Amino acid sequence: MSTQDRFVMAGIILIGDELLSGRTQDTNMGTIARWLAPMGVQVGQARIIADDAATIIDTVREFSERFDYVFTTGGIGPTHDDITADCIAAAFGRDIDVREDAVTMMLRHYKREDLNQARLRMARIPEGASLIDNPVSHAPGFQTENVFTMAGVPRIMKAMLADIEGRIEGGAKVYSIAVNAAGIGEGDAAAGLAQIETANPGVSIGSYPHYDPQLNHKSGQVKEGGTYRVQFVARSANEALLEQVRTQLEELVVTLRAQLG
Amino acid sequence: MSTQDRFVMAGIILIGDELLSGRTQDTNMGTIARWLAPMGVQVGQARIIADDAATIIDTVREFSERFDYVFTTGGIGPTHDDITADCIAAAFGRDIDVREDAVTMMLRHYKREDLNQARLRMARIPEGASLIDNPVSHAPGFQTENVFTMAGVPRIMKAMLADIEGRIEGGAKVYSIAVNAAGIGEGDAAAGLAQIETANPGVSIGSYPHYDPQLNHKSGQVKEGGTYRVQFVARSANEALLEQVRTQLEELVVTLRAQLG
Repeated sequence: MSTQDRFVMAGIILIGDELLSGRTQDTNMGTIARWLAPMGVQVGQARIIADDAATIIDTVREFSERFDYVFTTGGIGPTHDDITADCIAAAFGRDIDVREDAVTMMLRHYKREDLNQARLRMARIPEGASLIDNPVSHAPGFQTENVFTMAGVPRIMKAMLADIEGRIEGGAKVYSIAVNAAGIGEGDAAAGLAQIETANPGVSIGSYPHYDPQLNHKSGQVKEGGTYRVQFVARSANEALLEQVRTQLEELVVTLRAQLG
Repeated sequence: MSTQDRFVMAGIILIGDELLSGRTQDTNMGTIARWLAPMGVQVGQARIIADDAATIIDTVREFSERFDYVFTTGGIGPTHDDITADCIAAAFGRDIDVREDAVTMMLRHYKREDLNQARLRMARIPEGASLIDNPVSHAPGFQTENVFTMAGVPRIMKAMLADIEGRIEGGAKVYSIAVNAAGIGEGDAAAGLAQIETANPGVSIGSYPHYDPQLNHKSGQVKEGGTYRVQFVARSANEALLEQVRTQLEELVVTLRAQLG
């Protein structure tokens, strides 16, 4: 099987008590997933875990074995609760210490006299890891084998992705198309959707309802056909087949609307 | 140890390919976490997993053993990709079939002639599970042992929580306070934060920076002290101690601001 045919999978580990408490809303997962897709990498699973050393170490080990690429976010700042770098080192049985290349990167931003013990904590990098540039706040991320360790602040995380892009070898791309099915009940479409999926091996079809709050807030009631919208989404590595499926889904929508009308 | 002293932990399982692709942004995790906290339940871990039967079954089993309460969202609609109910039944070794009590609930909304095979799929409930009311779209969620299975659409999920509230027996409440530290560099505060945490056993302190996009978009540059904001957050089950820590954190902010000049 050539690289083009193989599905390359990623795991994402979002680290931070503030995510689990609901205080901070994660957006990094979606950002990473949408960045990976055009390169031919799909996200297989994501976990939101606490700032707990044993949990971080175990999850990194499990994901590193299980997925082609692993991305972690959070816990690489200067404070005592930033334990991710040490955990990555422990997960791979590597030493960790302040590294001169990381200090050099930080000196682009910080004066040497401002690099106190806390800030130098951000230059502690597992042995043998390669740095990930941080053009925003200049404390580096790092790559250890197939694990990319990044900041949790979305703006910094995004900036780090730019330096990772060249290190990813993708596989089969998974394309997706969406067909608007507003006004159609999912329950009325279900049989047709299953039929189309069965008739097109290699294509997976999902039906995604969502409620429009602008339509809902007056009555406080949701009525099928009126106040919610449905999209049919088909995904496949076979782009040509996907276009055929698009046509079939559009025909299904026309048929169902005629039956309703 | 009385119930009041014990930490009661929850696990959250967010099910859906559309979350992993980055097409849909999950908000249910935070909603559940913020709803649980006042009842004395903390979220220990959350996982975002694919619409894959083996993964759903394994994760439900693992979380059901590991956490006091488990919440799943997604995959209980009428279409072929809605496989969560069957997976929950499989995870607990129970039969699953259309249940009359679920049909009765759905008849509050649907006419009997509209309850086609697809919609009746939403009345398939694992044997022995108790229903969770759905006042929005009337297809029930259900509770199987310590696992609550809910819809993925946020509006419906929230409505289901109301019917679960009486079924949760919480433990120690974890309180949190936040102190604004805008203008202070995390690296300057790190030593003081660690000191305060060490001096107050049972209190965990986090430092959370975030960048203000309104301040950033002109220069495209982030400067410490000017364009990012930091909050110190302390969490503890001991509310009185937490108030002392608040004072200590506020004093730290005053001291650091004075040093910065």
